[in-house]
Amino acid sequence: MVSAGAPLGVFDSGLGGLTVVRALRRSLPGEHIVYLGDTARVPYGTRSAETILRYARSCAAELTQRGVKALVIACNTVSAVAVERLRAELDLPVMGVIVPGATAVVRVAEQHGAQRVGVLGTLGTIASNAYPRAVAQLSTRIEVIGQAAPLLVPLVEEGWLEGDVPRLAVRRYLEPLVAAGVGALVLGCTHYPLLHGLIAEVATELRGAPLPVVDSAEATVTLVEAWMREGIIGQRAGGALGRLELLVTDRPTSFAEQAGRFLTEPLPEVELIELRP
Amino acid sequence: MVSAGAPLGVFDSGLGGLTVVRALRRSLPGEHIVYLGDTARVPYGTRSAETILRYARSCAAELTQRGVKALVIACNTVSAVAVERLRAELDLPVMGVIVPGATAVVRVAEQHGAQRVGVLGTLGTIASNAYPRAVAQLSTRIEVIGQAAPLLVPLVEEGWLEGDVPRLAVRRYLEPLVAAGVGALVLGCTHYPLLHGLIAEVATELRGAPLPVVDSAEATVTLVEAWMREGIIGQRAGGALGRLELLVTDRPTSFAEQAGRFLTEPLPEVELIELRP
Repeated sequence: MVSAGAPLGVFDSGLGGLTVVRALRRSLPGEHIVYLGDTARVPYGTRSAETILRYARSCAAELTQRGVKALVIACNTVSAVAVERLRAELDLPVMGVIVPGATAVVRVAEQHGAQRVGVLGTLGTIASNAYPRAVAQLSTRIEVIGQAAPLLVPLVEEGWLEGDVPRLAVRRYLEPLVAAGVGALVLGCTHYPLLHGLIAEVATELRGAPLPVVDSAEATVTLVEAWMREGIIGQRAGGALGRLELLVTDRPTSFAEQAGRFLTEPLPEVELIELRP
Repeated sequence: MVSAGAPLGVFDSGLGGLTVVRALRRSLPGEHIVYLGDTARVPYGTRSAETILRYARSCAAELTQRGVKALVIACNTVSAVAVERLRAELDLPVMGVIVPGATAVVRVAEQHGAQRVGVLGTLGTIASNAYPRAVAQLSTRIEVIGQAAPLLVPLVEEGWLEGDVPRLAVRRYLEPLVAAGVGALVLGCTHYPLLHGLIAEVATELRGAPLPVVDSAEATVTLVEAWMREGIIGQRAGGALGRLELLVTDRPTSFAEQAGRFLTEPLPEVELIELRP
């Protein structure tokens, strides 16, 4: 096992995974984190499974070479196609966001007696059927209704988090889910937590009652904490705030500007790196 | 010069350049066309200039190897950073979409006595200042106001071409241009012609009078015809409809589904190819 003082490695195709970093900073502020956003190849959500796996391997190789103690794939699209392969290929704990999100939504559905849950995600995540598969391993009674929502990532990246355009787009994506009678919803893309409030509000309007909304970024951090308690990932000793490193493969300045929307702490300098293909 | 019977090579980061193909088919139906959509690396609009140039070189190499007689860069982002470099490096006529679009909008502005013109484009195209530079070479009196409109490409790719969401998004992007008093508008992205009607309609509402809207895909084909008349590009003899080949670097099935929105003719099979990096 890599030393407990080593950083957690977190990667995503771009910015979205910073919602996982934000949740990690809140719950585990003592951990060092190296975040890699593969901005030269963003978005992954529209790529084929073979292409996504190839990209994921190069991100994972970069982070393992930097000595991380565990790998958090902070991207639903990559988690959907690559988490088991990377786990088999790498000699360290590897976690995706889908199993944690599915686990959390099943728990919430059971608490509320819901038989159907909805998942919002990119085209790639929905087409992969990863959430229905993950939920099926946890419960045989709960049905998953998927809804691809390709406009939500561009809306978040444009910073249109409030107002008519995001509200109407969210409404259009939620209508079929509410019509199908889902009793809980999981945000199956790490960009979506920035629209959490709006999504919950529109869902309540459409449904006439609050709809529990699960954030897979938060759910993932809950699982990181559990793996630390179980000794699968070491926990860094000492109370000081951990170091945060931000690496990208293209346009560090633009990344730094947008990252402020995701993180509340003062940002470190964003480093431009090149990945082996 | 390559034989007049050889195909025209057209490339874009993805689907958008098919609006140029559509305009070519209308005006020059006898020409063979090889279209390359670099769907594995789409979108280029958010990449750095160095990255875009590297990608453009690999697309151009693929098409020249296939024996095209001229290269049409059917992408504003690539045209903004790579057209002059590719022209210097390659031994065949190379055309972008920006000079034709700028030429057309200047002509329209002069006809209407407008002193300011607007350009809608991706973040990359607007940041490059390519339209202001191109217009400055044609007229010293006309000022260009740029407006990045990052949501319009995802809207077109989602197929949301009508209704409240595209209307409100278009309105939000046009408001500053109309407020600045532009007297003509150029669509500085090859996706936008699919929103041409909506953009013209919203602009008219905001302005209280029609706003001339120039489509750079149409303007580019006008220049291809001019280069043929001038003998810079050979024109294929015979009246039969030319062959259309569609090549992509990822997800051919998804490309084929979406391409129907851009082209009206029955589509050929979409071929998946790999580019040298």
